[in-house]
Amino acid sequence: MEKLMIIGERIHVISPEIKEAIANRDIQPLIKRAQEQLDAGADYIDVNIGPAAKEGTEIMKWAVTGLQQALDNVPLVLDTANQDAIRAGLEVYNSAKARAIVNSADAGDRIDNINLAAEFGAKVIALLMKKGVPRNNEERSEYLQEMLERAMEVGMDPAEDVFFDPLTLVIKGMQEKQREFLDCIRDISEMGLQSVVGLSNASNGMPPHVRPIVDSILCAMAIECNLTSAILNPLDKRLMESVKTSEVILNRILYADSYLDI
Amino acid sequence: MEKLMIIGERIHVISPEIKEAIANRDIQPLIKRAQEQLDAGADYIDVNIGPAAKEGTEIMKWAVTGLQQALDNVPLVLDTANQDAIRAGLEVYNSAKARAIVNSADAGDRIDNINLAAEFGAKVIALLMKKGVPRNNEERSEYLQEMLERAMEVGMDPAEDVFFDPLTLVIKGMQEKQREFLDCIRDISEMGLQSVVGLSNASNGMPPHVRPIVDSILCAMAIECNLTSAILNPLDKRLMESVKTSEVILNRILYADSYLDI
Repeated sequence: MEKLMIIGERIHVISPEIKEAIANRDIQPLIKRAQEQLDAGADYIDVNIGPAAKEGTEIMKWAVTGLQQALDNVPLVLDTANQDAIRAGLEVYNSAKARAIVNSADAGDRIDNINLAAEFGAKVIALLMKKGVPRNNEERSEYLQEMLERAMEVGMDPAEDVFFDPLTLVIKGMQEKQREFLDCIRDISEMGLQSVVGLSNASNGMPPHVRPIVDSILCAMAIECNLTSAILNPLDKRLMESVKTSEVILNRILYADSYLDI
Repeated sequence: MEKLMIIGERIHVISPEIKEAIANRDIQPLIKRAQEQLDAGADYIDVNIGPAAKEGTEIMKWAVTGLQQALDNVPLVLDTANQDAIRAGLEVYNSAKARAIVNSADAGDRIDNINLAAEFGAKVIALLMKKGVPRNNEERSEYLQEMLERAMEVGMDPAEDVFFDPLTLVIKGMQEKQREFLDCIRDISEMGLQSVVGLSNASNGMPPHVRPIVDSILCAMAIECNLTSAILNPLDKRLMESVKTSEVILNRILYADSYLDI
């Protein structure tokens, strides 16, 4: 099993700093956050420009080009509900270092994002949902099958090109649903497929000092279930300690006394 | 699934303080350590008097009586290679609060400790080993079957009375064996049986600042595999945060914003 693929989540329109930088077309704050995340161990940088109904295509082009030029074709995850903006980003994306990832398709209105990814030789994150969050693993499994079929129809190799996301649920309020979420990650692995989760959603609404603890433990459990990839904040020290330690325990990276510092 | 049963490991002859207290028959340091562990969340207190070839029966009697009288019949795990000492401890043990646990039987020379436990209505920790550590899960499974049969022969209810210990292996040196160790915990659970692990052995030989991190992550992974019980240091803050958080995620204890302080 390869080591966890880390997607840095810190270029997100929800951050006031990033929102302002996008509004001003000031690429420097984006570059800075991308670099910090790469330094902390990110393999990919997520670029979330929000719904971006207006100017989305231009913004995504600008962000992809600016980041890749400054950072040696840094691998990017193109994250927006605006399909035209994703297309525009893919048109200018340079895959010299790694293929782009489209974030995201689902089994409902956004299933065509699988076709879009295939058209550009990109990979895709496939959310196991149709309308609203999945009620149980039966629904997740159904949605997975639908998107798996679509990916194969358009000539993708599902084991390589698709990351299935079981959808992290908020623990505070859906505490009894976490076991199923973890089981789904294991099921995906047992099918020979890849999984991805957006970790930080689980600890939403918890006190700030509790969140890194919850995130780090949930992450360890997900890795134990053979999670392939996670969208997370690589600057969260405790979380990254959990990632590295989990990988040592599962023999995905070699132990050294200094492994936490590497 | 019930919450993890925590066995406090801090009354151990390897501690110079405890060794001296035993030599002087000074029960106060034992009482202090037992109380601290109970306060930190221990359900049982392990009393490890070592091989205790000499004076073992007298020492175990003294320790069991002294601790139970001072601490309202505190639940104890009787831990020594000296079978006579275990018998002596069981003879004076008061099970008003909880049944004693014998630590430990194995599938080899110590299999008769299962009979001993049964004779006194005690529970037993059954190490999945015969001679030396198990080489793989096939061996573990073989040893489990042998001890399961023995327990049934002597009228025990294996699902209630036996805790199977897959034997934690030192990560530094046996990094590639940890996956199997975790799988064994899950297998035990899927058979409807109970598991126990001695956590701290896994991080042996690692730098002191790394050990609590490794212990806490391994513990989360083991709980994810439905671990029933762990022998650990309940005064290790990071480890106990991991235990509590794991149980919140798996819905074994109810979430509250203050759950880490409870």
